[in-house]
Amino acid sequence: MSGADRRSFLAGSAAMAGVAMAGSGAAVAGAVADFPIVHHVFFWLKNPDSAEDRATLIEGVRGLAEIPSVRAVHVGVPASTEARGVVDHSWSVSEILYFDDLDGQAAYQSHPLHVAFAEMITPLVDRVVVYDAAAA
Amino acid sequence: MSGADRRSFLAGSAAMAGVAMAGSGAAVAGAVADFPIVHHVFFWLKNPDSAEDRATLIEGVRGLAEIPSVRAVHVGVPASTEARGVVDHSWSVSEILYFDDLDGQAAYQSHPLHVAFAEMITPLVDRVVVYDAAAA
Repeated sequence: MSGADRRSFLAGSAAMAGVAMAGSGAAVAGAVADFPIVHHVFFWLKNPDSAEDRATLIEGVRGLAEIPSVRAVHVGVPASTEARGVVDHSWSVSEILYFDDLDGQAAYQSHPLHVAFAEMITPLVDRVVVYDAAAA
Repeated sequence: MSGADRRSFLAGSAAMAGVAMAGSGAAVAGAVADFPIVHHVFFWLKNPDSAEDRATLIEGVRGLAEIPSVRAVHVGVPASTEARGVVDHSWSVSEILYFDDLDGQAAYQSHPLHVAFAEMITPLVDRVVVYDAAAA
């Protein structure tokens, strides 16, 4: 395939998937945007200075990847970005779970591993905020 | 490469990247988790019932993919998941921008396309909440 053909092919694939492509990240952008359902969760620990509680929560989130309908997991901690009024840096741990569809998200909610995770973290967590997004 | 070798290779790659792999989504999970900085933004429109304002905001977010340090973009609207106390369905549009590093996120903030986007949406938007996450 020539370079021009390859670019044309990539542009066509992106258009079909409704993907916003960005420079050298194009191939990966397709992969990220291929997930129709995104489940964002932000956790505030009761003891935000406890490295042990934070590590327990992070490991627990990673374990959610074992649930079959969970297609990918991103686990985060607050990034040291500029303090601006609109940026909330007060949380402890973030997760993004990616699903193929709403049924996958529902199956995750009732899966025994998720139920066990929720029970395990309840004593550690002060507040949880969830945003469920469908690809626009 | 045999099937067993391939599984071993994939497991090794995932361990190196700190990726939580999930079933058939394994290859994609690597791609998603390869981005060290995730910039989540949730927008509440002043006129949440305006399909036109929503479309303008969504198109604006898609345009942010043109900024060189933006590696991938996911644009969302509230998913019709179960109403639970912890789930916020009140917002209008979500974006996830993926960056390679903090410098990339800072370059995005000051990029003329982002500045123009912020000016364009200011009259439309009532509230913005940002969470910046570094891969844990």
